[in-house]
Amino acid sequence: MIITLKKGAPQQEIDKIIHEFESKGLAVSMIQGTDYNVFGVVGDTTIIDDRIVSANKYVENVTRIAAPYKKANRLFHPEDTVVNCGGVKIGGQEKIVVMGGPCSVETKENLMTIAQGVKEAGGRMLRGGAYKPRTSPYAFQGLGKEGIDYLCAARKEFGLPIVSELMSIDKVDEFEEHVDLVQIGARNMQNFDLLKAVGKMTKPVLLKRGLSNTIEEWLMSAEYIMAGGNENVILCERGIRTFEKYTRNTLDLSVVPIIKNRSHLPIVIDPSHATGDWRLVESMALAAIAAGADGLIVEVHNDPEAAWSDGAQSLTIEHFKTLVEKGKKIAQVVGREI
Amino acid sequence: MIITLKKGAPQQEIDKIIHEFESKGLAVSMIQGTDYNVFGVVGDTTIIDDRIVSANKYVENVTRIAAPYKKANRLFHPEDTVVNCGGVKIGGQEKIVVMGGPCSVETKENLMTIAQGVKEAGGRMLRGGAYKPRTSPYAFQGLGKEGIDYLCAARKEFGLPIVSELMSIDKVDEFEEHVDLVQIGARNMQNFDLLKAVGKMTKPVLLKRGLSNTIEEWLMSAEYIMAGGNENVILCERGIRTFEKYTRNTLDLSVVPIIKNRSHLPIVIDPSHATGDWRLVESMALAAIAAGADGLIVEVHNDPEAAWSDGAQSLTIEHFKTLVEKGKKIAQVVGREI
Amino acid sequence: MIITLKKGAPQQEIDKIIHEFESKGLAVSMIQGTDYNVFGVVGDTTIIDDRIVSANKYVENVTRIAAPYKKANRLFHPEDTVVNCGGVKIGGQEKIVVMGGPCSVETKENLMTIAQGVKEAGGRMLRGGAYKPRTSPYAFQGLGKEGIDYLCAARKEFGLPIVSELMSIDKVDEFEEHVDLVQIGARNMQNFDLLKAVGKMTKPVLLKRGLSNTIEEWLMSAEYIMAGGNENVILCERGIRTFEKYTRNTLDLSVVPIIKNRSHLPIVIDPSHATGDWRLVESMALAAIAAGADGLIVEVHNDPEAAWSDGAQSLTIEHFKTLVEKGKKIAQVVGREI
Amino acid sequence: MIITLKKGAPQQEIDKIIHEFESKGLAVSMIQGTDYNVFGVVGDTTIIDDRIVSANKYVENVTRIAAPYKKANRLFHPEDTVVNCGGVKIGGQEKIVVMGGPCSVETKENLMTIAQGVKEAGGRMLRGGAYKPRTSPYAFQGLGKEGIDYLCAARKEFGLPIVSELMSIDKVDEFEEHVDLVQIGARNMQNFDLLKAVGKMTKPVLLKRGLSNTIEEWLMSAEYIMAGGNENVILCERGIRTFEKYTRNTLDLSVVPIIKNRSHLPIVIDPSHATGDWRLVESMALAAIAAGADGLIVEVHNDPEAAWSDGAQSLTIEHFKTLVEKGKKIAQVVGREI
Repeated sequence: MIITLKKGAPQQEIDKIIHEFESKGLAVSMIQGTDYNVFGVVGDTTIIDDRIVSANKYVENVTRIAAPYKKANRLFHPEDTVVNCGGVKIGGQEKIVVMGGPCSVETKENLMTIAQGVKEAGGRMLRGGAYKPRTSPYAFQGLGKEGIDYLCAARKEFGLPIVSELMSIDKVDEFEEHVDLVQIGARNMQNFDLLKAVGKMTKPVLLKRGLSNTIEEWLMSAEYIMAGGNENVILCERGIRTFEKYTRNTLDLSVVPIIKNRSHLPIVIDPSHATGDWRLVESMALAAIAAGADGLIVEVHNDPEAAWSDGAQSLTIEHFKTLVEKGKKIAQVVGREI
Repeated sequence: MIITLKKGAPQQEIDKIIHEFESKGLAVSMIQGTDYNVFGVVGDTTIIDDRIVSANKYVENVTRIAAPYKKANRLFHPEDTVVNCGGVKIGGQEKIVVMGGPCSVETKENLMTIAQGVKEAGGRMLRGGAYKPRTSPYAFQGLGKEGIDYLCAARKEFGLPIVSELMSIDKVDEFEEHVDLVQIGARNMQNFDLLKAVGKMTKPVLLKRGLSNTIEEWLMSAEYIMAGGNENVILCERGIRTFEKYTRNTLDLSVVPIIKNRSHLPIVIDPSHATGDWRLVESMALAAIAAGADGLIVEVHNDPEAAWSDGAQSLTIEHFKTLVEKGKKIAQVVGREI
Repeated sequence: MIITLKKGAPQQEIDKIIHEFESKGLAVSMIQGTDYNVFGVVGDTTIIDDRIVSANKYVENVTRIAAPYKKANRLFHPEDTVVNCGGVKIGGQEKIVVMGGPCSVETKENLMTIAQGVKEAGGRMLRGGAYKPRTSPYAFQGLGKEGIDYLCAARKEFGLPIVSELMSIDKVDEFEEHVDLVQIGARNMQNFDLLKAVGKMTKPVLLKRGLSNTIEEWLMSAEYIMAGGNENVILCERGIRTFEKYTRNTLDLSVVPIIKNRSHLPIVIDPSHATGDWRLVESMALAAIAAGADGLIVEVHNDPEAAWSDGAQSLTIEHFKTLVEKGKKIAQVVGREI
Repeated sequence: MIITLKKGAPQQEIDKIIHEFESKGLAVSMIQGTDYNVFGVVGDTTIIDDRIVSANKYVENVTRIAAPYKKANRLFHPEDTVVNCGGVKIGGQEKIVVMGGPCSVETKENLMTIAQGVKEAGGRMLRGGAYKPRTSPYAFQGLGKEGIDYLCAARKEFGLPIVSELMSIDKVDEFEEHVDLVQIGARNMQNFDLLKAVGKMTKPVLLKRGLSNTIEEWLMSAEYIMAGGNENVILCERGIRTFEKYTRNTLDLSVVPIIKNRSHLPIVIDPSHATGDWRLVESMALAAIAAGADGLIVEVHNDPEAAWSDGAQSLTIEHFKTLVEKGKKIAQVVGREI
């Protein structure tokens, strides 16, 4: 951590600051600059709150050199983490996992149809929303527990582990019992009480990146979960908000090599929410595989035009099958399998 | 709601779409364009989900004309809403309310000192965080219930109603009992389960704008609370995320006249979080009053450099007093009082 | 074009507005809504300026249905445009073109070394900046005409057509004479006088997307060039500005399928400027090919650490060769060749 | 400047880096961190290009401590700069200057009417666009030289110095001869050849902030002009691009105290382009004065609905008069005059 002091800071103020760091077991070096004086603070600076340091009126600027996350940091955990989701392994040199399913769980019948299609196309996990985060209070809010039950029935029938979104701490027990991979949605990426709650679960967590969050903030949210004791975190990029109007969000595929460099956690791409448009999903899914992603999570529906939510971004079962076929060939080029 | 169809959509498809809207009690008009055909859908379109309409492959585009919010919309509720917070009225032609207090509640002693300072300076409500949303799991997370107790003690002593942030549904009863104005933080603006929960409270809600949310999304979150039965919502702008690095966030003061035009709810400005820098707080606070805000919420600390969080953006008690003095004069020019 | 009028607009005002559109040869249809009245304006609405329409105090909102660009619009020009750059064809079903070269032209010797490397690796065009847009007036501004001369010498020696950035109208003749593909940089995407000037050139133009511009604005800048008479425009995505700090910009690969859908112009990806980090270039280049790009423009240097500018994002010649090898295999999967 | 090296960088590499800085007259200090080694580079680091330093593969990160601008920096030029625009002084403790006029110059008659209105309302400079940057090639592009002539005629008649936008280097002589304050528009803020050209003019320059540029980039563009020899630069905030859709741009008023802290140059606010909506102009103009701005530039039209461009954001002459009246009272509160 580098701290810039205004020229003219009284020596006694400087001594006070140095003493404070030293009392926390950190070492301090000082550089006399032309217009500023600069401290380097050495040691485990994750315990320091930048904002407290900058409250000092002689402090011009505080810059963090070491990342503020530890458990999620590849520097301290060089081997890839492989996460086991109800028997399906994600990360490292494991096969790329394609997850498919409807935006919302609707009826038992159509979920079964879709699950069968996902299975036959080569998908290995089933996604489906039972509790839905909707911007309008007047929109369909999901089937709730009934939706979870249908997902469990589909899992039993087709052997596909299930992933579904958890929105609230009062459903933690329900998800712990029934769901194989617990999704934290983009809008809850910094719902810290929810992060703490899933940090105590034994089920793995799929942590979506917030709409306007940086990779560092995303890794800090993973750190929250891991600090609570649950180290089975999978990161999921689902598009960020930009000024572009022709897509719902902008898919940031550079996260794939960046996450692999900075962290040991697996990275999965959601091309459906990222684009909001089924016509863009296939090319973005193939690009994600070419970039090195560990998995894909794709919206699939037997009749997108009749979907209860987000039909505009759902692939038909046939289209999903084509996508997996092409994906297999791309995977081979980059030394992976699907 | 305007729906654009691609040229060449089969008549039977067009009839199906029209029939679907009409079955929901909406009227449909059609315009034959050169390159597109366009429908106008007339009636209460808040019940329609745009994304479902756009799932039809012949639909090029869906545009909403009427706002998707009803209860928060001035069109249907022309008079200003005035919200009573433990006896202090906010909104309409009421006096501008200045709230002050520390970022986090720390000790009982310093809270008392600050509360007394806020009171004497002309502040009319006391702010203070007991549960703190922190980006790092290793940072101070707030005193919890103990913090609420200290706030209650300060209220008793100085007669200042209190405002504090609620982060989780399991604390709803605690806040219903003790807090006068329940704050929903920026990162929880789209935590829909929390919005539903405060929608059932009897205490008024201070809803902060999310870091990257539009005014429409913010009003939709207010709509969530109001749709649950709690119509006492105060909106609070606290800065949005932009590319600028010299401030923590960018204060968007144009929300003041916009909210007054589109909604009947009161609008309060938080210049402390918006800038993250105490040196910018006074000028932004005065600007907010000049723009027509109904209130200010300002971080104040008896010793900012020793604050347990966000000292960098806290005013001293003396500075807060100066701010209120100048604010009174600006208020007069725009026909208000503090 | 859809125009929303406030309820209560006087009939005479409505008649005036209708008359104005009709006098321009446009047809007008009207829909009576519950809270608003809505006009549809049918015909060539590219001649209408939205902002003039919204100046009317009874107008609530103006929404464009048809795209504001014509010459760049696939709707009116269904076949792919193939652009010939000094003998190398880009677009349509032509081979994917990989362009390589240094950020800035430095010495003749190292340019020759790099050009030979690019050629041997399978690159088909040579890039190099002679006039450099630098954010600091104190940074190296490029060799100018000398740089163009070196590029011409390298072209002569290795048969690679050259692409270089034009920053100012006073160099148009120089570029018309010497350069095969004239690059307009991101910061000049809306330098309209420069767009008008290249619109009169006979050489093709590589139009980079601005750092914060939408695809529609980008296509409008292409329209400027085409409206001037030069229809040989290639679009180039080079990353957009987002809140992310771990990359210089965020590469938006969804532009590839979108441009192919909305326009007939070729689309090329620049993974070097998009990421600003050579470690991310290969994976983003492969992803671009998987997404369907018509070409790549990549920074290559014989000794990146000694480069006079942007060495941090330059590949070595060896790395560039590997990239082209892998790219060939990805291209095959998506039905293309390099 | 702080340079972070990966642990494990060979000593000889470290020595090479140190030697390179020392050969440029800079001093180097080193701090041994736990996970990184850190250099401090002391001296005039504006001559160093960060991107060249980061090209070294052992460099993890480069952080600038001192600002990269010198001539625009208050640190080296503590007194306020006051700029004389054809007799009207802007900056320091001078009166706040209100500039008014149409978006585009249209006819001589209506310009005269507007100029008279601006004068009588208390405006002290006349604005008007003769060369217009338009996103569509099919929109009105301005009257050109004829527009400048009308502005000169209005200046002669009413004694108001004129401000107008220069878009291209081939009009520099025309502006040098006729215009009192040369505006560089937001889209040209990083048109570096244009900045160099106005850097050689004797007339003062009004430099608008780019739509997505940081304050640091803006000051670097001012530095370009000043480095060329023209130190009479006035900064103008005109709104930045954000996700908000209810305004055209988002006015960032925090620039006012920031510019006053970091630079000695005057700062002027354009509430018309910032909001794009005349209904928001007055409150934003008053807020700007409360925040401490040195001037306002406001669009005024005798008949906004008939304006040839941007009528939606123009005030009537009467409304402009009211704004100036209220502004005078706000100015008094903050110790200024209009």
